[in-house]
Amino acid sequence: MSKNLTKREVDYSKWYNELVVKADLAENSAVRGCMVIKPYGYAIWEKMQAELDKMFKETGHQNAYFPLFVPKGLFETEEKNAEGFAKECAVVTHYRLENDPENPGKLRVDPKAKLEEELVVRPTSEAVIWNTYKNWIQSYRDLPILINQWANVVRWEMRTRLFLRTAEFLWQEGHTAHSTKQEALDETIQMNRVYADFVENFMAIPVIQGLKTESERFAGAEETYCIEALMQDGKALQAGTSHFLGQNFAKAFDVKFANNEGGQEYVWATSWGVSTRLMGALIMTHSDDQGLVLPPNLAPNQVVIVPIYKNEDQFDEIYKLSNKIMTSLRSNGVSVKFDGRKTHRPGAKFAQHELQGVPLRIAIGPKDLENGTVEVARRDNLTKTVMNISDLEINIVKLLETIQNDIYNKALDFRDNHITKVDDFKSFKKVIEEKGGFVSAHWDGKPETEQKIKELTKATIRCVPIDVVKEKGYCVYSGSPSNNRVLFAKAY
Amino acid sequence: MSKNLTKREVDYSKWYNELVVKADLAENSAVRGCMVIKPYGYAIWEKMQAELDKMFKETGHQNAYFPLFVPKGLFETEEKNAEGFAKECAVVTHYRLENDPENPGKLRVDPKAKLEEELVVRPTSEAVIWNTYKNWIQSYRDLPILINQWANVVRWEMRTRLFLRTAEFLWQEGHTAHSTKQEALDETIQMNRVYADFVENFMAIPVIQGLKTESERFAGAEETYCIEALMQDGKALQAGTSHFLGQNFAKAFDVKFANNEGGQEYVWATSWGVSTRLMGALIMTHSDDQGLVLPPNLAPNQVVIVPIYKNEDQFDEIYKLSNKIMTSLRSNGVSVKFDGRKTHRPGAKFAQHELQGVPLRIAIGPKDLENGTVEVARRDNLTKTVMNISDLEINIVKLLETIQNDIYNKALDFRDNHITKVDDFKSFKKVIEEKGGFVSAHWDGKPETEQKIKELTKATIRCVPIDVVKEKGYCVYSGSPSNNRVLFAKAY
Repeated sequence: MSKNLTKREVDYSKWYNELVVKADLAENSAVRGCMVIKPYGYAIWEKMQAELDKMFKETGHQNAYFPLFVPKGLFETEEKNAEGFAKECAVVTHYRLENDPENPGKLRVDPKAKLEEELVVRPTSEAVIWNTYKNWIQSYRDLPILINQWANVVRWEMRTRLFLRTAEFLWQEGHTAHSTKQEALDETIQMNRVYADFVENFMAIPVIQGLKTESERFAGAEETYCIEALMQDGKALQAGTSHFLGQNFAKAFDVKFANNEGGQEYVWATSWGVSTRLMGALIMTHSDDQGLVLPPNLAPNQVVIVPIYKNEDQFDEIYKLSNKIMTSLRSNGVSVKFDGRKTHRPGAKFAQHELQGVPLRIAIGPKDLENGTVEVARRDNLTKTVMNISDLEINIVKLLETIQNDIYNKALDFRDNHITKVDDFKSFKKVIEEKGGFVSAHWDGKPETEQKIKELTKATIRCVPIDVVKEKGYCVYSGSPSNNRVLFAKAY
Repeated sequence: MSKNLTKREVDYSKWYNELVVKADLAENSAVRGCMVIKPYGYAIWEKMQAELDKMFKETGHQNAYFPLFVPKGLFETEEKNAEGFAKECAVVTHYRLENDPENPGKLRVDPKAKLEEELVVRPTSEAVIWNTYKNWIQSYRDLPILINQWANVVRWEMRTRLFLRTAEFLWQEGHTAHSTKQEALDETIQMNRVYADFVENFMAIPVIQGLKTESERFAGAEETYCIEALMQDGKALQAGTSHFLGQNFAKAFDVKFANNEGGQEYVWATSWGVSTRLMGALIMTHSDDQGLVLPPNLAPNQVVIVPIYKNEDQFDEIYKLSNKIMTSLRSNGVSVKFDGRKTHRPGAKFAQHELQGVPLRIAIGPKDLENGTVEVARRDNLTKTVMNISDLEINIVKLLETIQNDIYNKALDFRDNHITKVDDFKSFKKVIEEKGGFVSAHWDGKPETEQKIKELTKATIRCVPIDVVKEKGYCVYSGSPSNNRVLFAKAY
């Protein structure tokens, strides 16, 4: 397999687009803006799903499923939410096709089958879910409701890119209902922490937890918490969001509960989600000019064994040894595959597994059989070591842990080296234009200032970090007083 | 919790509708024909998914994801398939809403945002998938392709019922591509067997494997294999189908491969699916007038422990004992829940767990503490036994296996008692009208005869059973010669 992968420094965007396709992760489909997630890409997504699902259940959530369609009348009920998504809604207007009398063999929309009320393909499910919760909630005893949904959603984006921005994408959306403001706020923060935990410890991507400013907030939310990651090209990527919705949806859908004094109160809400966009973050954080680099926790195959042989006898002997190695690794929870394809030479196999980011490659040749050794190659730093078969099992298990940590630390170093404190606007522009990454600067808290900075530099406020010491100062643009630094960056 | 469940003999259909809602499985939504699958119902569906997914992977399949939308031009490419689904297609015609100038605060479809080509919401994915496979297949080395997708699909049905027939439903659809006819046929039959294996051994529902007649075949298929189950009211339910698609889609989408002699051939195809309809089959096969009966393999909670106490000290002691029991059961892979709610009396808890089909209920009271016993109640046959705590673990594990088998055998007896051999049309009508179930009768193989019988009796040919000895005879309606018996029934 010839890679012909564009180098990152030549054209990062092109490198990304090529890598997604060449590593067999996803491709564009015949439907504008919609992608096909190929088996190798989907296997990585399944691993993310499995871990997140476990974490959601451990924090008391249950899965359920709500309709794909939202009747227009429900969709427009919470006005801010509706306004935020109206411009990117796919709308079903008819429920039948008929033979086209003017084009034999072709179909056309049957004009007699027009829906009385149009159906919006869900861009997010707050409306349809809160219309349902209305019937589920009478008393404080019915609360909290802690539900998650795995689903597809559609947002008709004009410029799309595989995984990062597609018209249809896969995601999970949590929707919870609470009797008090504090409980809803705690849930919002808890789920943002769950996301941070997952992305850092499982995907090996360091993130900054923070709050969105008003202009970047989810439509219909009172507060949006987020996790922000930094890609290798110095652009930020929003990796997950958790929204405190206040009583906005409860008021719009008239969802009240009887409190334990018998009074009626509006219910408090949260929603939170991550999507297949995480695949984009994964690729752009770790991969290199040779292809994908996968953290062992997410690799469909953590280890691949490639036999190097000159005749069938050698192949058979290597195959036998490989089976022993596989049994022992599998009993330690390591996923391992033997690549015995006779249609491909070892070099082509090496290239493919490098391109697809398999964390460890074990090569076994005739000399190894004699010496009781194998050659182990790490994908992340491209180093090779000869190891004795006798202690291979324990070494591989340790090495996978090491790789998981090393990948994280490499990304963390990069990220930390790309948070630049800046106190004047000239430096601000220079850092954004030349160095990239996050700029930590004072901001006066005004949307107009934020907007002006965006116009001048294309940088937006990614978040107001939480878990940091507050520091007074003066806005980098307006010079007005500021209560703390925020993080600016160009973003995906 | 008051059940007020309609009795089956009074109104089976009403009993079903009430049970689905009262047992918290699903409910109707604000969207015509679309359901909300509630957490308890979804937990059962997740268990089905997990087991099926494992079985698909064990037979060499990988998951992937294809777009929700099918452009009209692709949809109509395979004409029979398009014709079969055209009348029930939800169609997206616009991609934006705008403020309605005549109704402040309301939205309307933006007429300027009309799609050039309408998008069909997938009723099934052959078209979009074969249009993709076209680019994946060049040579015999690219075959077979063995892919499955978990997804939602939409078929605009006029009369809908929860789980059985909904406008949107969840399913899996396998789509495979092969270099030879035989391999595709083998795959079709293999997957029908996988379905039969799953439904019988996991859902405890006996099924008959067979072939559909031409009139009941999937639109675009050359052969449709199916598994047919029998519900308690004597109506049949198609529980899964596996289609041999021949080269129909390959020809429609021009998908050829270079064989190993260098010639070009069209690819052979299969597709196969089961859906949330299986939930309907599960409910209608096992449940009774007290509510749901779940096979242990699918129960979200296999065992529930209900404490019976007069004061807090007793509660604490029972709670301590329950924890020991739960630890020991869980270490044996049994899912068990302690129902310590203080807002509900034991009687109400019993009723709820009965209604929701928990296979085993353990009640522990003060006398049990003295005697070292517990009371174990089986949901399936409503019997109770006092068991010693000392050998509870092994007894519960055995009992769960027994219940799984007993439920299956009960359904099998019922099914076998409702296959009636009939050789004249008068008896045919009588059995269909009075006894119900499957009628095993000779048929002359003509669609006209099949249609006539359907008009006269509402019974259709559910399948031509495979794995049975063929027997010559004369058609029950026309008297013409017949090569084997087929199974007729009224069906869901």
